[in-house]
Amino acid sequence: MGTITNHPKVNLTQTRTYCETLKSDLKETFFPDNPFGGFKSLPPGRRVWYGLKYYVPILEWGPKYTLAYFRSDLLAGLTIASLAIPQGISYARLAGLPPIIGLYSSFVPPLIYAVFGSSKNLAVGTVAAASLLLASIIENDVTYAENPELYVNIFFTAAFFTGVMQAVLGFLRLGILVDFLSRSTITGFMGGTASIIILQQLKGMLGMTHFTTKTNLISVLHAIFHYRHEWRWESFVLGICFLVFLLLAKHLKEKMPKLFWVSAIAPLLVVILGGLFAFLVKGEEHGIPIVGELKKGINPLSIAHLTFKGKHLSVALKAGVLSGFLALAEGIAVGRSLALLKDEQIDGNKEMIAYGLMNVAGSFTSCYLTTGPFSKSAVNYHAGCKTQMSNVFMSICIMLVLLFLAPLFKYTPLVALSAIIIVAMIGLIEIHEYKRLYKVDKFDFIVCMAAFIGVVMFTMVIGLSVSVGLSLIRALIYVARPATCKLGNIPGTDIYLEMKQYTDACDVPGVLVLQLTSPIYFASAGYLRERISRWVHDEQNKRDKSEADLQLVILEFGGVTAIDNSGIGMLFEVRKNLEKQGIKVAITNPRQEVAEKLVAAKFVESLGEEWIFLSIKEAIAAWLFTLHEAINKEVQV
Amino acid sequence: MGTITNHPKVNLTQTRTYCETLKSDLKETFFPDNPFGGFKSLPPGRRVWYGLKYYVPILEWGPKYTLAYFRSDLLAGLTIASLAIPQGISYARLAGLPPIIGLYSSFVPPLIYAVFGSSKNLAVGTVAAASLLLASIIENDVTYAENPELYVNIFFTAAFFTGVMQAVLGFLRLGILVDFLSRSTITGFMGGTASIIILQQLKGMLGMTHFTTKTNLISVLHAIFHYRHEWRWESFVLGICFLVFLLLAKHLKEKMPKLFWVSAIAPLLVVILGGLFAFLVKGEEHGIPIVGELKKGINPLSIAHLTFKGKHLSVALKAGVLSGFLALAEGIAVGRSLALLKDEQIDGNKEMIAYGLMNVAGSFTSCYLTTGPFSKSAVNYHAGCKTQMSNVFMSICIMLVLLFLAPLFKYTPLVALSAIIIVAMIGLIEIHEYKRLYKVDKFDFIVCMAAFIGVVMFTMVIGLSVSVGLSLIRALIYVARPATCKLGNIPGTDIYLEMKQYTDACDVPGVLVLQLTSPIYFASAGYLRERISRWVHDEQNKRDKSEADLQLVILEFGGVTAIDNSGIGMLFEVRKNLEKQGIKVAITNPRQEVAEKLVAAKFVESLGEEWIFLSIKEAIAAWLFTLHEAINKEVQV
Repeated sequence: MGTITNHPKVNLTQTRTYCETLKSDLKETFFPDNPFGGFKSLPPGRRVWYGLKYYVPILEWGPKYTLAYFRSDLLAGLTIASLAIPQGISYARLAGLPPIIGLYSSFVPPLIYAVFGSSKNLAVGTVAAASLLLASIIENDVTYAENPELYVNIFFTAAFFTGVMQAVLGFLRLGILVDFLSRSTITGFMGGTASIIILQQLKGMLGMTHFTTKTNLISVLHAIFHYRHEWRWESFVLGICFLVFLLLAKHLKEKMPKLFWVSAIAPLLVVILGGLFAFLVKGEEHGIPIVGELKKGINPLSIAHLTFKGKHLSVALKAGVLSGFLALAEGIAVGRSLALLKDEQIDGNKEMIAYGLMNVAGSFTSCYLTTGPFSKSAVNYHAGCKTQMSNVFMSICIMLVLLFLAPLFKYTPLVALSAIIIVAMIGLIEIHEYKRLYKVDKFDFIVCMAAFIGVVMFTMVIGLSVSVGLSLIRALIYVARPATCKLGNIPGTDIYLEMKQYTDACDVPGVLVLQLTSPIYFASAGYLRERISRWVHDEQNKRDKSEADLQLVILEFGGVTAIDNSGIGMLFEVRKNLEKQGIKVAITNPRQEVAEKLVAAKFVESLGEEWIFLSIKEAIAAWLFTLHEAINKEVQV
Repeated sequence: MGTITNHPKVNLTQTRTYCETLKSDLKETFFPDNPFGGFKSLPPGRRVWYGLKYYVPILEWGPKYTLAYFRSDLLAGLTIASLAIPQGISYARLAGLPPIIGLYSSFVPPLIYAVFGSSKNLAVGTVAAASLLLASIIENDVTYAENPELYVNIFFTAAFFTGVMQAVLGFLRLGILVDFLSRSTITGFMGGTASIIILQQLKGMLGMTHFTTKTNLISVLHAIFHYRHEWRWESFVLGICFLVFLLLAKHLKEKMPKLFWVSAIAPLLVVILGGLFAFLVKGEEHGIPIVGELKKGINPLSIAHLTFKGKHLSVALKAGVLSGFLALAEGIAVGRSLALLKDEQIDGNKEMIAYGLMNVAGSFTSCYLTTGPFSKSAVNYHAGCKTQMSNVFMSICIMLVLLFLAPLFKYTPLVALSAIIIVAMIGLIEIHEYKRLYKVDKFDFIVCMAAFIGVVMFTMVIGLSVSVGLSLIRALIYVARPATCKLGNIPGTDIYLEMKQYTDACDVPGVLVLQLTSPIYFASAGYLRERISRWVHDEQNKRDKSEADLQLVILEFGGVTAIDNSGIGMLFEVRKNLEKQGIKVAITNPRQEVAEKLVAAKFVESLGEEWIFLSIKEAIAAWLFTLHEAINKEVQV
């Protein structure tokens, strides 16, 4: 084998201790972004300060705050406040809560986020999907009509659990969990939720007073037609006017992005004009239901009202955890896409801590679940926000509203809120995205549609679970059925490529080159054993008809990132099986983790170190050399 | 780029229809062994016959049966029958069932397996772990003492569900599910179960009459000492004698494998001698409890006794499904390891169907769950069985025992059964295997110990679930955190290898080569985006101090076996991000499935087809060429 001595060889002696391996694995799993990477060279005191700045970003950007930033942030803050008022009221109604709680929820959480949040573009507020999800779970326990106080308290408790869960996930660096909510799942879930929310708004549009608490298509349609004697044309006409106005404003924004603010303040205009109209014509007496009494004053403390008793506890926990996951996924996705536009990085784990703290603080001060909704954050971004301070300005506006103007919103017609919600939801049904998914990846399309149809036809929890379940099954099937392929040589080169893909690639006489990929794992070991023996069998059948017998099987390990005990057991079996048939086995290019384990399990010892090569070319050269020597010996004898 | 025209290029035009992709994916997932591969060229009539032979293996080997086979199988059959009698009685007692049901269970199922089973070495019978698991689940619903008839019927019903589940899994080719019970889980589970079974036998060894139905260490120890006034020294002394005898026989087998039959018939000898002894000294009156009345006659029909009502149904279903999985995993593993010794292949899916049919038939004829236990099958193998016919001979022996000799076993001392069980279980606690796991793979060791400790300290179901859960989490972490590494050039070659592993590998000035492996997937897309940007960032920091700026990032895709929608989204983002910093992106060696999707999602179009290469060498050559041209142009201007 003198021909290859000038090449480097596979390093089989280098072994790391278990601690080193574990440390590096844990680091990749939980700290993929290496947040403290830059601190290592600093003295301890500065390290603590940097660590603190890492967890409390305001310490980082606060001291550098300038007047120019102030002007931009103030403008952005005013713009998003004008959106926060109607959205806050609308989504609170969607959750079946008193509208004032929607305003409360736009006051405290944004302040907390400004301190701990790392995204400069996110505008904090309540979201439609999570509001509806919370309501659909909590209404199984108690409805607002049955016991208003308890109903509201369970919402606060749910927000508390959401916050604790989010903060814990963030501290434990379990951002990895959110990775399992795929984009396809979220797209489908959002679309499905938006569809049922729009349908539910027919209640408001038609001025109905009775309705169903269920969210599925059949129940909603049934309720609409069952109570058709309650339909009021006055409400419907007004609603259509609002809808047209809002859609025009939205259209204007799309045509002329500079006029985004028209679309941003349009909902507030609708609320104000609608309120004036309802006040003037005494709408309530003429088939235009209004929001009703709103108390003046900022958030009352709710910390004493959290209910941790028996049945309510488990409902609050379930509602909090599920909606918390959803809110996290939405918030982080929104933060990430906006950061990308400005070429900034945000840290998912840090964001989780910020969300967690803001929801815990919120649950103590009469707020329900908040996150970073897409619509508001996009407006914030377009309005030119520079830092998290825009949330503070929004918060101040809401505080002023709560202190002085809240009672004025009493006259807001419900139909105005419905129109606002419908327009906000239309954008979430991304037909073009479904089409694209269908074209690019049928399974992603199925995952997406499972969420959509599950939400529309059954419940939001079913839609979400089925979709996540399908994604996980797919991931597990990938683990259980890794790709293997037969490589062939491109004539005149040292390149070996998949024979099915590259028709130029040729068989090497007497040799079968198989590329294994992905970890070799308990779930895939059995499959790989079968598959390798099938490759060998097929090869032998084919070779029967041609010249050379199969004498060497090369397993190309370059793509094998890990191997476990069952995988090594499989290798032992494969080798035993093949050697019984007089076929040698060689392994090429094992990675360090894999080489370490092969040595530890004595596979290398049993195979012979000389059958482990750096490249396919070398393996074949070495094999030809031994073959040649064997023939020479025979000739001499 | 004229330098590379003589090389083949990545084929970006070849696209398969969705049906083709789906068909090939389904085939790899469910038919990895390609069972019907050889039939394609046959006429339809012969195909049906071959298909039938595939599902009913007796049609394959039956016609070729010879007298030589008959002699071998008869001998093996007699040997395993001598083991089946004491084991059947013992394990039935372990399940809390009347001993006669253990004998029934060794009569019908082996006959069915002989027809449908594909393993020539498997000996069918009841197993200790599954017996205990069934009892531990069913005793939550009803105990034998409370309602003997119902208790027994629930066992039959559980066997029915086991059978239906196994057959359905086999027909649907869901052998993939068994793949998720890893070898480490089974090793730990078996060891833990064997430990608690041994502890439980202290009841029999000490001749106690009261005991606990719980299986965990604390409860068992508590019961032993709580009822210590029941301890009988007579029973204990006899037990120790039996134990010593059985251990000696076992030791003899290990020293002289040819004398395996001594160890095989030792249990029967113990039962016979013990029975004689108990009969002669009237053991029952002197602290040596005996088995008691056994009815003559073969299996009564039990089909009318299956209970599908309310609470019992769900208990039977749970017990049947859980123990069925366990039995499948044990049976298939045993069949596979024995087949390997004889260089034969067995088909997991076909085996499932055979197990399913034998359990359904068993549940109709007063049998409880059966599978292919390791001890019996190993004896069968060593006794020189040639075909499935040895099961038939065993079955005939058991039939004769049931018809004529059953009442004689009345005098079997319980302590003899305990000794038999203890000796059978000792071999299942594989301390050397735990040590090996600890050395080779710490995580596998944890998975194994989780099963062991879970079973010993809590319940069997908890041990099994925690262990499988840990394995799945590990598999999912692999999916979510695929390995990436930086490749460097080995000077003087075209080989690019991981720089951390091969210290000879050198940086290419201005170029960063990253190898991605495993599917790029919704669960890993976020991580990969972070990780790539960290690689780039680290590289830029390093390069600041040296000469060349980073200008090209090559993503080596050879190990990427699949990509989904989120993965493609990630690529778009990465590219956008890098190009903003003036860094080009190139992709090398994408596999066909991945190339197809990149084309469909218009990523190739957006990147430019000329930035997709077959090898890293070509990518760098092409990049240098364009660089060179650009400089030339500048010089000319």
